[in-house]
Amino acid sequence: MNIIDEIKNIILERDEVKANELFEEYHPVDICLELEDYEDEEIGIFVKLLNKENLGLLLESAEEDLARIIMRFFTNEELIETFAFIENSIVADLLGFLSTVRRKEILSLIKSDKQNILKMILSFDEESAGSIMTTNFIALKEHLTADQAVKKIISISPKTEIIDKIFVTDDKHRLSGIVTMRDLLVCHADTLLRDLMEECDFYVYGTDDQEVAANLFSKYELDILPVVNNKMVVLGVITSDDIIAVIDQEHNEDMLQMHGVNADEEYDSSLMESFKSRLPWLVVNLITAFLASSVVKGFESTISQVVVLSAAMPIVTGMGGNAGSQTLSIIITSLARGELSLKEDFKLIFKEIFLGLTEGAIIGLLAAGVFVFWHHNLYLGFILFLAMILNMIIACSMGFLIPLLLDRLKVDPAIASSIFLTTFTDVFGFFIFLGLATMFLPKLV
Amino acid sequence: MNIIDEIKNIILERDEVKANELFEEYHPVDICLELEDYEDEEIGIFVKLLNKENLGLLLESAEEDLARIIMRFFTNEELIETFAFIENSIVADLLGFLSTVRRKEILSLIKSDKQNILKMILSFDEESAGSIMTTNFIALKEHLTADQAVKKIISISPKTEIIDKIFVTDDKHRLSGIVTMRDLLVCHADTLLRDLMEECDFYVYGTDDQEVAANLFSKYELDILPVVNNKMVVLGVITSDDIIAVIDQEHNEDMLQMHGVNADEEYDSSLMESFKSRLPWLVVNLITAFLASSVVKGFESTISQVVVLSAAMPIVTGMGGNAGSQTLSIIITSLARGELSLKEDFKLIFKEIFLGLTEGAIIGLLAAGVFVFWHHNLYLGFILFLAMILNMIIACSMGFLIPLLLDRLKVDPAIASSIFLTTFTDVFGFFIFLGLATMFLPKLV
Repeated sequence: MNIIDEIKNIILERDEVKANELFEEYHPVDICLELEDYEDEEIGIFVKLLNKENLGLLLESAEEDLARIIMRFFTNEELIETFAFIENSIVADLLGFLSTVRRKEILSLIKSDKQNILKMILSFDEESAGSIMTTNFIALKEHLTADQAVKKIISISPKTEIIDKIFVTDDKHRLSGIVTMRDLLVCHADTLLRDLMEECDFYVYGTDDQEVAANLFSKYELDILPVVNNKMVVLGVITSDDIIAVIDQEHNEDMLQMHGVNADEEYDSSLMESFKSRLPWLVVNLITAFLASSVVKGFESTISQVVVLSAAMPIVTGMGGNAGSQTLSIIITSLARGELSLKEDFKLIFKEIFLGLTEGAIIGLLAAGVFVFWHHNLYLGFILFLAMILNMIIACSMGFLIPLLLDRLKVDPAIASSIFLTTFTDVFGFFIFLGLATMFLPKLV
Repeated sequence: MNIIDEIKNIILERDEVKANELFEEYHPVDICLELEDYEDEEIGIFVKLLNKENLGLLLESAEEDLARIIMRFFTNEELIETFAFIENSIVADLLGFLSTVRRKEILSLIKSDKQNILKMILSFDEESAGSIMTTNFIALKEHLTADQAVKKIISISPKTEIIDKIFVTDDKHRLSGIVTMRDLLVCHADTLLRDLMEECDFYVYGTDDQEVAANLFSKYELDILPVVNNKMVVLGVITSDDIIAVIDQEHNEDMLQMHGVNADEEYDSSLMESFKSRLPWLVVNLITAFLASSVVKGFESTISQVVVLSAAMPIVTGMGGNAGSQTLSIIITSLARGELSLKEDFKLIFKEIFLGLTEGAIIGLLAAGVFVFWHHNLYLGFILFLAMILNMIIACSMGFLIPLLLDRLKVDPAIASSIFLTTFTDVFGFFIFLGLATMFLPKLV
């Protein structure tokens, strides 16, 4: 029997034993993916059958919508009991899904040490390093011996996520270094942590953007990253498995936003969600299209005399758009990795200008050849050739400049770059080509 | 003094002490990033000053080009000495950068146990799970006690990367479970690993694509993933910090390929590399552009009678392209995450058709309104409205179908989807709009 049928039967028969056994057979992530297809009441029947530990596993893996539905079926007291099985940063996420009133009610009922940690996590912005950190880490004082440290670790290890990297702190709780479990086990029992620890090269502040943390992980292949406050006290730790979700999210956001889609639209979003996600961008694009269209309209009399121009002009603008978006995708990818800055890399614009020139010359020559062959008019070919070169230079240099300028202005370049680029390549493309055609009109008719 | 000046001085003064001290102050990744800007001979001077351990750190962090340059300055014997400080999977990468002749020479000089591991890693394809795994893991027999296990781990831990997750194997070396260091430390000393271990839910084969591993990490938030052969013998392990590089790489490939750029082009690639990376795609696009252009040419006589059509037609094709690429980006993102299949999700095409219809109706109405206002011709507005709806339906359904079909045919949808999409939206867009205009020609002139 597969997971679909099993869940169906469990809901039908309200079978408590089988509901909890399901967690031995399947990963909570897969159970969540199945549950998403059920009606709210069916989900309610299923989750009410679970013991608090399995309910905790389910809530840990549930996406926002499903988590909201699940939590609706439980009292505040039941949820608090369940939260005992869930890592604090995820409990904070779950609390964030609730109404302000209910969140405050539940927080006030949680015992004060856990309550303070949760309030601290909730105080950080949604996409900050502090919001994704784990608070179950081990920090030990630097005057402890290796032997004392190992005993301490054993006594508190059931409550922590990572036990192979231990933070070492000074008298004022400030991060002073890191020791590994391996070093603790192989050194002399009376070695002081102070002498054993290694310096901690990287850390982030709780208020830093999660992308800062993600870039550190990518660049230096870290496995953990401590999160500190401005007094260098460790608040939590980000692990590489936490950061994978962030990296996926940031990449997908870039990919979707570059194509005018809201970052949270999924392939199975409802029709209304998709509609709301896409329409605003289409309207913005329409305004751009009208800008380009009014350039064409301005040259109506030229086109009416040489109608073949209307068949050639989309080639100039289209190819400009293509060349520009090649540059754009490279610059946006590099910006996301934090590799590029307007100040340091400005001279690379000359490479792009030269690329536009050579690409334009080759593509222009090919395009011109075809039109000369079709129309036996050398001037038409020459105009097409020249317009292609000029538009590709604009395309490549704008594909370079626009995202860097937006980045400088603290606007996410993935969102707005392509609309600006298309405006340039379309408006200039039509203008250059039809303008040249108007200049050489006597040779064309 | 900053890193740039320090390296400059070290090379000028050939200062061995300062060269090696640099590694206490800076991360090897940062030293590599600086070195990339130097001439080959300068790099040679610098790396010859390093002791083998620091040379190993440098090679571990170096990109392919830099690693090739560095290795050129050392004999086979010197490289082998250096490889002792480098993790095997990276040694295998480095060997892969050498000529076949030199690779074979070096391999034959390496002692046989390490040689066999390297040959095994080298036998896997470049983007397979086997090529990115670490071979420094701990596997213990299931009949050992916790106490015996801890002693064994302490004795071999200096040679391994991960010590908090230990693989447990049966008599035939097959993977039977995983124990954590935490469990070993807190349990009774005479507990058997067999009774302590947890089942291993996830594993990959060495021959599996690295993307399969990456998707497992993303979906189930894993921290490690064993790599096995077809007899279930553990060959290595992939850690979440290894997989971050893979996830970054796969995402960037998708982003670049979707815009017609080779996956290995960087913002600072040489002019020639960029040129080679981009030109082929532009030529393919040019062919598409000519297809669309020849449709326009076919309607020359219609356009010559109603010139305003030439100002309206790029709006129809442009908006179709925009709407289609919205769908495309969502489908490609979902495919990359392994969430979508043609068979299971075919019915979602109806959502896209309906989206195309509604988006087309709204955008078409806006566009028609402007043209009716400009030209006082209701028929022109009606044709624009109708063409927009039809082209958006084609755009959205093709944006859905094309990547799924390509995926089914084992073609990477990121590479080819957008060219097919633009062909459809341009060719159909021009054809529908100009075709309708020709039908209603008497009402337009």
